[in-house]
Amino acid sequence: MPVYRLTIEYDGAPFSGWQLQPGLPTVQGALEEALHTVLRRRIPLQGAGRTDAGVHAFGQVASFETDLTIDPFRLAKGLSALCRPHVAVVEAAVAPEGFNARFDAVGKHYRYRVLNRQAPSPLRGGQAFFVPRLLDVEHMKQAAALLRGRHDFAGFRSADCERKSTEREISRLDISARAPVIDIDVEGDAFLKNMVRIIAGTLVDVGRGRMTPESVRGVLESGNRTRAGQTAPAHGLTLMEVFYPKGWLRDRRR
Amino acid sequence: MPVYRLTIEYDGAPFSGWQLQPGLPTVQGALEEALHTVLRRRIPLQGAGRTDAGVHAFGQVASFETDLTIDPFRLAKGLSALCRPHVAVVEAAVAPEGFNARFDAVGKHYRYRVLNRQAPSPLRGGQAFFVPRLLDVEHMKQAAALLRGRHDFAGFRSADCERKSTEREISRLDISARAPVIDIDVEGDAFLKNMVRIIAGTLVDVGRGRMTPESVRGVLESGNRTRAGQTAPAHGLTLMEVFYPKGWLRDRRR
Repeated sequence: MPVYRLTIEYDGAPFSGWQLQPGLPTVQGALEEALHTVLRRRIPLQGAGRTDAGVHAFGQVASFETDLTIDPFRLAKGLSALCRPHVAVVEAAVAPEGFNARFDAVGKHYRYRVLNRQAPSPLRGGQAFFVPRLLDVEHMKQAAALLRGRHDFAGFRSADCERKSTEREISRLDISARAPVIDIDVEGDAFLKNMVRIIAGTLVDVGRGRMTPESVRGVLESGNRTRAGQTAPAHGLTLMEVFYPKGWLRDRRR
Repeated sequence: MPVYRLTIEYDGAPFSGWQLQPGLPTVQGALEEALHTVLRRRIPLQGAGRTDAGVHAFGQVASFETDLTIDPFRLAKGLSALCRPHVAVVEAAVAPEGFNARFDAVGKHYRYRVLNRQAPSPLRGGQAFFVPRLLDVEHMKQAAALLRGRHDFAGFRSADCERKSTEREISRLDISARAPVIDIDVEGDAFLKNMVRIIAGTLVDVGRGRMTPESVRGVLESGNRTRAGQTAPAHGLTLMEVFYPKGWLRDRRR
């Protein structure tokens, strides 16, 4: 059965997250409603990442199966028109048979943005965590270096995270400062609940001098959430891109 | 009498422009109200540029005179708190005696942003003109080159502009494309009414193929507004910076 892949941008502010929740506005819910209007059928979407309430996306990916034949360009246009202004389908494409946006994803790139100056920013504030105290970026980089690689991230997940295995690999954790913005770019194969926001909050606490770079090692070794920093607010976080195996999409496309 | 200088960022969307208008929400009105609350006096602000309804600013400048002694840091913080979330005072400083943000300005930098892709952008759409048809950036650059320098810009002003002299100098007109964004950066000593938006609209029409780069020369020579392009929408325009004479602020500061 044909599978379609959607690449989706959204402003997370008005939503209770990606995932469908009865009675609450969600990105998945808005898209499934629009899909129903366009295709006249109820078809469930598989999203690659279940972003939290308030988290944004430039490149969320979702897939669905249908026996209908659809022009991808018109599908993207129709869904964007129905979901505006907070959700847009940036691209729609026919995917290889069997493609599943969630289970085939091999990694994700998240960006956590900090606005570090004395004044808030009316133009950028909706997509950045406003930190008026000057942060020590060098200390943040030292702490980030300790988190890169494969570790047990039990200390960096929310209390209600139910995953049994807490070992994860962070392949990229870069901090780039172009005043007044500090971007924390995180890539990994999979993440625990709130993991990126707790990493960002911990790095900000290091930058503030509330924690030392070395104390981050202690959080990793102890697995103790209470020793890590705050959970940084959702509106600073954006899902930038979802990765799939190289060649997978190309080789299996008919 | 002491003069204070404010550097102001704002989201233009909720405002009927910078300039005070009775009964309408304006940036100047919001700031003067806040100033009244902080200083317990009504003090008029002089703004460097009268941005239109919907136009944004990263670096608007305004000045005011008062015999009160004010801590600039607390002033900026207080005004930002009262004007949030759409207006923030990025910096407040004591200015040289006699400083006037409007009459001492020697130039301004505006950026017009185009979002050029098929899908709208929930995250960037509020600050960019969405043009779904692929633009020819090389043609836009050729047309921009013809507009740089000193010209009679009578063809690039709104019908109700009342200035007698229509000669202006554009010292910078750069087009930089980093897909899907095309930025048009314009600097000049002074601008006619809607001039930057008509230039942007004309360049977009060239990019679309509705006008040739050479036809821009005809608009300059004829001074005929009807031969120029559309007035590009306000929400794509941002006042980036206001320039003052080098040394002026430093030399005359006590």
